[in-house]
Amino acid sequence: MNLNNETFIIVLSIIIGITLISLVYVFFLKSQLRKLEIENANIEEISSFIREGTLAFLKKEYKIIVWFIIGIASLFALLGFIPVLKNAEGVGWKSALCFIVGASFSGLAGYVGMTAGIKANALTASSANTSGMSKALKMAFSGGSVVGLSVVGFGLLGLTSSLCILFLATNDLSLACQVVIGYGLGASTVALFARVGGGIYTKAADVGADLVGKIEAGIPEDDPRNPAVIADNVGDNVGDIAGMGSDLLESYAGAIISALTLGVSSTIHYATTAVLFPLLIAAAGIMATMISITIIRMREWKDPQKALNIATYIANLVVLIISLVFSFVILESYKPFLTVLVGLLIGILIGYIAEYYTSSKYKPVQEVANKSTTGHATNIISGYAVGMKSTAITIITLVLGIILAYLLEGMYGIGLAAVGMLSTVGITVSIDAYGPISDNAGGIAEMAKLDKSVREITDQLDSVGNTTAAIGKGFCIGAAILTSVALFISYSLATNLQAINILEPLVIGGILIGGMLPFLFTSLVINSVGKAANKMIDEVRRQFSQDPGIMEGTSKPDYAKCVSISTSAALKEMILPALIAVLMPIIIGFIFGTKALGGLLVGGLISAAMLAIFMANSGGAWDNAKKLIESGKYGGKGSDTHKAAVTGDTVGDPFKDTAGPAMDILIKLMSMVSLIIGPAIMHIGSLLEKFF
Amino acid sequence: MNLNNETFIIVLSIIIGITLISLVYVFFLKSQLRKLEIENANIEEISSFIREGTLAFLKKEYKIIVWFIIGIASLFALLGFIPVLKNAEGVGWKSALCFIVGASFSGLAGYVGMTAGIKANALTASSANTSGMSKALKMAFSGGSVVGLSVVGFGLLGLTSSLCILFLATNDLSLACQVVIGYGLGASTVALFARVGGGIYTKAADVGADLVGKIEAGIPEDDPRNPAVIADNVGDNVGDIAGMGSDLLESYAGAIISALTLGVSSTIHYATTAVLFPLLIAAAGIMATMISITIIRMREWKDPQKALNIATYIANLVVLIISLVFSFVILESYKPFLTVLVGLLIGILIGYIAEYYTSSKYKPVQEVANKSTTGHATNIISGYAVGMKSTAITIITLVLGIILAYLLEGMYGIGLAAVGMLSTVGITVSIDAYGPISDNAGGIAEMAKLDKSVREITDQLDSVGNTTAAIGKGFCIGAAILTSVALFISYSLATNLQAINILEPLVIGGILIGGMLPFLFTSLVINSVGKAANKMIDEVRRQFSQDPGIMEGTSKPDYAKCVSISTSAALKEMILPALIAVLMPIIIGFIFGTKALGGLLVGGLISAAMLAIFMANSGGAWDNAKKLIESGKYGGKGSDTHKAAVTGDTVGDPFKDTAGPAMDILIKLMSMVSLIIGPAIMHIGSLLEKFF
Repeated sequence: MNLNNETFIIVLSIIIGITLISLVYVFFLKSQLRKLEIENANIEEISSFIREGTLAFLKKEYKIIVWFIIGIASLFALLGFIPVLKNAEGVGWKSALCFIVGASFSGLAGYVGMTAGIKANALTASSANTSGMSKALKMAFSGGSVVGLSVVGFGLLGLTSSLCILFLATNDLSLACQVVIGYGLGASTVALFARVGGGIYTKAADVGADLVGKIEAGIPEDDPRNPAVIADNVGDNVGDIAGMGSDLLESYAGAIISALTLGVSSTIHYATTAVLFPLLIAAAGIMATMISITIIRMREWKDPQKALNIATYIANLVVLIISLVFSFVILESYKPFLTVLVGLLIGILIGYIAEYYTSSKYKPVQEVANKSTTGHATNIISGYAVGMKSTAITIITLVLGIILAYLLEGMYGIGLAAVGMLSTVGITVSIDAYGPISDNAGGIAEMAKLDKSVREITDQLDSVGNTTAAIGKGFCIGAAILTSVALFISYSLATNLQAINILEPLVIGGILIGGMLPFLFTSLVINSVGKAANKMIDEVRRQFSQDPGIMEGTSKPDYAKCVSISTSAALKEMILPALIAVLMPIIIGFIFGTKALGGLLVGGLISAAMLAIFMANSGGAWDNAKKLIESGKYGGKGSDTHKAAVTGDTVGDPFKDTAGPAMDILIKLMSMVSLIIGPAIMHIGSLLEKFF
Repeated sequence: MNLNNETFIIVLSIIIGITLISLVYVFFLKSQLRKLEIENANIEEISSFIREGTLAFLKKEYKIIVWFIIGIASLFALLGFIPVLKNAEGVGWKSALCFIVGASFSGLAGYVGMTAGIKANALTASSANTSGMSKALKMAFSGGSVVGLSVVGFGLLGLTSSLCILFLATNDLSLACQVVIGYGLGASTVALFARVGGGIYTKAADVGADLVGKIEAGIPEDDPRNPAVIADNVGDNVGDIAGMGSDLLESYAGAIISALTLGVSSTIHYATTAVLFPLLIAAAGIMATMISITIIRMREWKDPQKALNIATYIANLVVLIISLVFSFVILESYKPFLTVLVGLLIGILIGYIAEYYTSSKYKPVQEVANKSTTGHATNIISGYAVGMKSTAITIITLVLGIILAYLLEGMYGIGLAAVGMLSTVGITVSIDAYGPISDNAGGIAEMAKLDKSVREITDQLDSVGNTTAAIGKGFCIGAAILTSVALFISYSLATNLQAINILEPLVIGGILIGGMLPFLFTSLVINSVGKAANKMIDEVRRQFSQDPGIMEGTSKPDYAKCVSISTSAALKEMILPALIAVLMPIIIGFIFGTKALGGLLVGGLISAAMLAIFMANSGGAWDNAKKLIESGKYGGKGSDTHKAAVTGDTVGDPFKDTAGPAMDILIKLMSMVSLIIGPAIMHIGSLLEKFF
């Protein structure tokens, strides 16, 4: 179907309307949470500490991001004034504006989700205390829903309005699609900071709290006497909730943008409908999320697993039905629907593969636990091997999906599969955020010295969350790889490259350098966690030694000091990795040209994909092997086997929660930067071309 | 200079003559070693155990290899009978024969070097006992020289004669260069078995001996009461001497072959001289090796480091002078000389980078040692980060070298740089083999209960060997990467691919699958070590418990049983990885076509290169951090810090001695298989092309 411009704008407006409705729903859910009173004074006090700590971190983080954003935006705007770059769409003040809008909307989604999450933490603990499982589940799920819906709502609202305004201003759809890439880069930049900064924060606080509190002082986890306990809890919020949300917002925006840029140059479909289709699928996903959230909220649930499963099924079903209709009506073919289906299926499959390798129900984790009986080294080696092995079937699944999508709809199909995979991201994030909310509620219950039964309820909620978290992590990785492939193809279109030939030495060089970057990045991030953790360890030790009253329970530890140390350390440590991610494509591109930059992206994609899968699954396997042993198997808690398993878990923590997820963002960010800077390099020419 | 066929054959014959002279030298050195008597009866007895164990392993290994070789050779020969493949040069009975010759010469070099190494072990121990440092150094260096010279002598003899016969038979140089690739594949296949099988063997025996002997029974390393002690020593021979030698023989042959195939289609030079030049450089390297060995042998040395350094300098200097002459005389340009120089320099630089990251003299290892004070997990994390970081500067050096070589001499230049890097491999292997020979001599001294001063001498010899081993490992990796890039380009020529376009989904799919394979391979190999080690652990425990006389020193342990267990386990465990390496390119190629196969090679190259560097340097850093602590720093031997460092060392062992080096072979083997099978796939067409 060919649409005229008026109809096109009307459909865009409808999509914007749907996102606005979802945001109204977000604020409705939030106001409901806000209205609820926390009756227990202890919970109230702890919650206010956590809130203050989290907001302090966000404030400092956003301040750094603002400077970073201003820097990059100015660069893009200035490049636009160079006469030879007049036709390089990626740069110029319009892109710079889109970039700022993308960053702002991602930041906004993070802030809204975060504040709801903090309140939900406390309410879940309090409900578990007064009303039991069903009410607690409702609170945790409500909090998760706000996070999930605000990610998709803000994400799609900003993107669609930017596209709409650009199209109205230029009347050139192709140009509008090129410029709107800036929006994706803005979201990527914020995501990098949120994921890496949050990841460093949460692990530094975690290690600091555990090492000095649990091991040296011998007090239990989440004991209020531990000065780092609030920082630990803050870390869970900024890392697992805000970090994860902004990561998926970025994937979501990236997938849609790559589908737009591939769609607008599609030779099979009309440009307008090819651009609208992915946006409509995303809008369908938002509706599906709202519907399934409403259904879950309407009933009382005894079994959290069942509730979350049903929510997912409903969302997937709704998206599939709506995309089937749109596929026939506006693209007049069943094939686009099939690519969406392929994307959804790959996402689910990869999630289950991740679960197989990281759940204690299956052989790999049991094997890691078993190998812990012979000591630390064998625990490490077997967990390492599990993660490496898990890359095989994950990658094969993805490759089959990519080839299938390509056979169905060409390059555009790969973009559509990514959009399909991420269409139900609203509900995925809701469920993903539900996990840390329940976990934090458990921590608050400990700190507030509530009855043991409260912790049991939150533990039950949390254990469901753990499985969903593993699946969600696999899903994030799959989405990132698919999106990067699509972005990479968009890059070649934007730079007019008919071919990036691996046989050219500059391309080989680019591939090798690109393949190295994720290793360097991982090393930097892991070292950052170590450095930040050391500062935390020193501070906790200092407090314990200077004020013996803390351990006796007569005086309160200085929580704020720990929060502030973790905050500064995390923010300081994330600047170098962030600079490398943004600057490397620019440097390589301007020195060696667009083809070498293409090689850089491919090399980066390969290494980042493998490391992301490997580190996430190794980390998950070590974590659950430890939990399996703690449940009483292979010697149980306190045994030498357990100690070996704790080593694996400690090694795995920065793998799965900091470096691994950072890989997803690294490749997308590098792709986005290249996509924007590519046309400029093409017009200016590379240094090497000038001299040889 | 354009040579007529007669002159061409004459020069080839001269090269063959030089290789024959080097083999005469090998047998002279060997007979000298053989003539020497070992006076100490204890050493004699232990040495005979080790000899028996090693020969038993080699015999079993070669039996398996023979079947593998027959299988592959038959496949190639049979494919040649398919009518459509009449013009696919890679397959057919000629290639099959070359393949068998390559495998046989590699096996022969392994056998000759190995037997000399075993004798040298005993002689070094015995000389250190009776005559002191200078004589012991001479013995160890003589042993190493036999290993080094037989690698280059056999390697170049087989290759040059095959090429000569093929050219005489076909009178088609281009065809001869294509068919002789089979020789390289034969060498690769043997190298895979020797490296992986030897690597599994040595680590299984090592872990078994250490875990039960040192930790459980509390007896020192190399104590003759330990039933696994002979197996451990055999492992050092088959892993560190035979494995390393065949690895470098393979790199050597691979580099020359890729330079031949690129040279024969060179547009700058005449085909005959472009083919002769790399062979002449290799022959120059052999002469250089003989000269520097002779000079070292003529003098008495007090300082082993100085002797080895001088040997290296002389060899490099001789190669440079000779290649400068040939470059001007037969290629009539200074540029080929410069590419050889670039190759040599990169090799040296990469070696020094490896030393920086793995020597206790520098910050990275000191940092790992320091981090061991806070426990097992921080030791693991910091070693892991060091290895990952080391990829950065290594890869940048290589990329600069590749680009420089390309700017000088095009694709041919990349091949020449690889040949240049490997031209002095004879002396590199001599020095590399010298290390384990000294180490084994130390083991024998312990077992034979010689005076402490003997161990001190061998330790001093060995400590120099450790540095050279780290440099040698970096060198192996660099050579493998450069060779693979050259082979990859040869592949594209052989399959008539003008471009392998990363923008094609099949290529992307190939790249992703290829990138995954080294991770899968690593996981399999590491698990194999674990499984084999477990069998060894069970056996040692069984012997200790069934015969308490062993610990009391009244009865002899059953060494042969341990040797046989390690042998069977290692050989059984290496079959699956070997099959994957050989079959994956064939399967992907025939299903998805030559372009997807090209992608597979690139993806494999990226991951294998990064993992090889990362694992070698992490392993080295952990190893030397442990040694640094054992020297008394950070708490010294027996402290908790030391225990944490031992964990890192145990994890690092299979990294640096099994999985890491296997990466080098994996990529070269996959490239060779593809190079041979490529033309056949091109002629038959892929399954996917037939159905879509």
